[in-house]
Amino acid sequence: MTRLVLKFGGTSVGNIEKIQKVANLIKKKHDQNIELIVVVSAMSGFTNELIKKSQSISKNFDPAEYDVLVSSGEQISSSLLTGALIDLGLKARSWSGWQIPIMTDDNHSFSKIINIDTKEISDFISKKGIAVITGFQGISNKNRTTTLGRGGSDLSAVVIAKFFQTDSCEIYTDVEGVLTTDPSIHNKAKKIDKISYEEMLEMASLGAKVMQPTSVQASMINNITVNVKSTFSKAEGTLILDENEIDYQKVVTGIAYSKNDAKVTLVGVVDKPGVAADIFEPLGKSNINIDMVIQNISSDGKETDVTFTIKREDLNKTLNLIEKSNKKIKYKNLIHDDKVSKVSIIGAGMIANPGVTYKMFRCLANENINILAISTSEIKISVLVKENLTQKAVKALHKIFELD
Amino acid sequence: MTRLVLKFGGTSVGNIEKIQKVANLIKKKHDQNIELIVVVSAMSGFTNELIKKSQSISKNFDPAEYDVLVSSGEQISSSLLTGALIDLGLKARSWSGWQIPIMTDDNHSFSKIINIDTKEISDFISKKGIAVITGFQGISNKNRTTTLGRGGSDLSAVVIAKFFQTDSCEIYTDVEGVLTTDPSIHNKAKKIDKISYEEMLEMASLGAKVMQPTSVQASMINNITVNVKSTFSKAEGTLILDENEIDYQKVVTGIAYSKNDAKVTLVGVVDKPGVAADIFEPLGKSNINIDMVIQNISSDGKETDVTFTIKREDLNKTLNLIEKSNKKIKYKNLIHDDKVSKVSIIGAGMIANPGVTYKMFRCLANENINILAISTSEIKISVLVKENLTQKAVKALHKIFELD
Repeated sequence: MTRLVLKFGGTSVGNIEKIQKVANLIKKKHDQNIELIVVVSAMSGFTNELIKKSQSISKNFDPAEYDVLVSSGEQISSSLLTGALIDLGLKARSWSGWQIPIMTDDNHSFSKIINIDTKEISDFISKKGIAVITGFQGISNKNRTTTLGRGGSDLSAVVIAKFFQTDSCEIYTDVEGVLTTDPSIHNKAKKIDKISYEEMLEMASLGAKVMQPTSVQASMINNITVNVKSTFSKAEGTLILDENEIDYQKVVTGIAYSKNDAKVTLVGVVDKPGVAADIFEPLGKSNINIDMVIQNISSDGKETDVTFTIKREDLNKTLNLIEKSNKKIKYKNLIHDDKVSKVSIIGAGMIANPGVTYKMFRCLANENINILAISTSEIKISVLVKENLTQKAVKALHKIFELD
Repeated sequence: MTRLVLKFGGTSVGNIEKIQKVANLIKKKHDQNIELIVVVSAMSGFTNELIKKSQSISKNFDPAEYDVLVSSGEQISSSLLTGALIDLGLKARSWSGWQIPIMTDDNHSFSKIINIDTKEISDFISKKGIAVITGFQGISNKNRTTTLGRGGSDLSAVVIAKFFQTDSCEIYTDVEGVLTTDPSIHNKAKKIDKISYEEMLEMASLGAKVMQPTSVQASMINNITVNVKSTFSKAEGTLILDENEIDYQKVVTGIAYSKNDAKVTLVGVVDKPGVAADIFEPLGKSNINIDMVIQNISSDGKETDVTFTIKREDLNKTLNLIEKSNKKIKYKNLIHDDKVSKVSIIGAGMIANPGVTYKMFRCLANENINILAISTSEIKISVLVKENLTQKAVKALHKIFELD
């Protein structure tokens, strides 16, 4: 018999009316004789309210108590949805993380799922029951509530799909699927029918908000086909699956961009072995994530310029750390720019198409957009541009790579 | 070492500022080298919001899912309070019902506590830790969340005090203790310093809202001294304890009243054995609670009048049931009055003072208040009066029995 995981995000269960809509959607699936495991997020906005409360109590709110606090949101939505299913005459029951149990490590607030006991729920769904599981949470071997980090309900859904060996995992959200780019900056954004794990991982990492990168990674590792679709429309959604199952017609699958970047350049650094390590060691130790790095080869072999990008929120900390370590790192000047943005084209199709890089750069040049830095992977090319040119760049690339 | 249960009601943890106040209050106790177990209710209003949500999903919301839903409120307040304690530099940890576990029967939404595993928490508090426990909830032997019914956090506190053999149980609320009468209808209401379990049970049953009758009963059965006091004042509060520990100076301890009563009279009932049973059997089977009952002896031995009181909300149902069973019960007329109220004087001191009944009736007569029905117990006399005379009756009795 077909067995599915259906995951509903916060906006899908945002109020009573929506919860009842979701219950009806589940009923239709159930009427098709499918074994169903439903995973729910907290009602939209609720978790943020709780986080605000914890922050007004303490700037360093205890992580274990934080998990007790925020896990209540899924407890509420799971019981309301289950109540709605029972009201429709269905057999349904909610399970919280501790009841199954979903065992995790004890890194509170960003735990990893280690094991899921499937017996009780498998038994229940094999007898026409609908199991409703709280996303985002588990318990540690110390019997304490843990959570998986923001967006963790998707991760729960994917890992539950793995442990229950379901046929696929459907992620219901408030958009029609994964789009070629952000529709809020380009109205020609289109739904992607199929996308590979690797492409989706790049899209998610580069700013597409449909799924968190960790969830995409989990589906890739476990080879779980994920179907991202809208709760409120009948459209097919986007399938996330292995690239071998995709017949690539286009070189580029999607265009992503990230805001909130900042660029830092050390001008006139003494060019000797180990200098890059000296620059990045204190930043790494302070948990500052370095994104792009460019080091020019110096013409005279004595001096070089080192440029890198970071999250804008880390800029002041970064500048302080570099200035503090200026005894070790010799440089002439430290400059920065916090009005930059990274625009990326993503597509597994580009592996077989060597002309993509050239096409991208020519396109941007034609638009008079200056490239401040470049970074590439097998299926992605990212360029750093001035922030106010982001939309122009996205629109031009969307057109040139035939996504319009 | 002294060991205490401190229980904080919903208004005491109603917002972040209040939670921080409570944390400071707990810190002061902790600084006195007292082993502390804290029991919390949900933030005021939160549980009602959840109940409203469940009701808008279904009129018969599944009781087991209801328990999952409403138990989230205490989970939130317990973690926020524990976070606040940790922020004050204290060692603290929250426990939900399932973690301890607090074992209950599986009568969802009105479960009874069967057992509490004390080992882990005893260990924790003996090492200077402050244990914060969610009130109102437990788990059944089927590993499902249960709740104890409205006001159940007080009951949790009392039963926890019993299992942990604490020296007493302090119930913190938004009033200064148990008052001689409802201050909203009589401004001369005064705090009672000491009250016996039996008196408190009558007060609670008759409308005083400080504690639910079940919680008072649990403290009586287990002989737990309860101290009801205000979170926001330094006043001593009210001690609820065994009557042997009270030196009664006054005959009457308090005056209670209940609104929402209704009176039903069957006029001209054929007076034969079994008639009362015939009247009350269908009501009992429909879960209608009969309060006072008066049956006049008929002068001719053939007919009698039967009067009884019920909750006002049950009036229509009651009248329907009696009219339906009119083949079995012969009566001439069925009359009712839903504008009645029950006023009671309560005091263990009245056992040794036979003149109390007379004094009460004379007092009401002097105020021109007609008594519609009377019911008595060893430590209580209740009279039914017209609803609009309630306040007048309470004030007069409060004065005559020297409570002003």
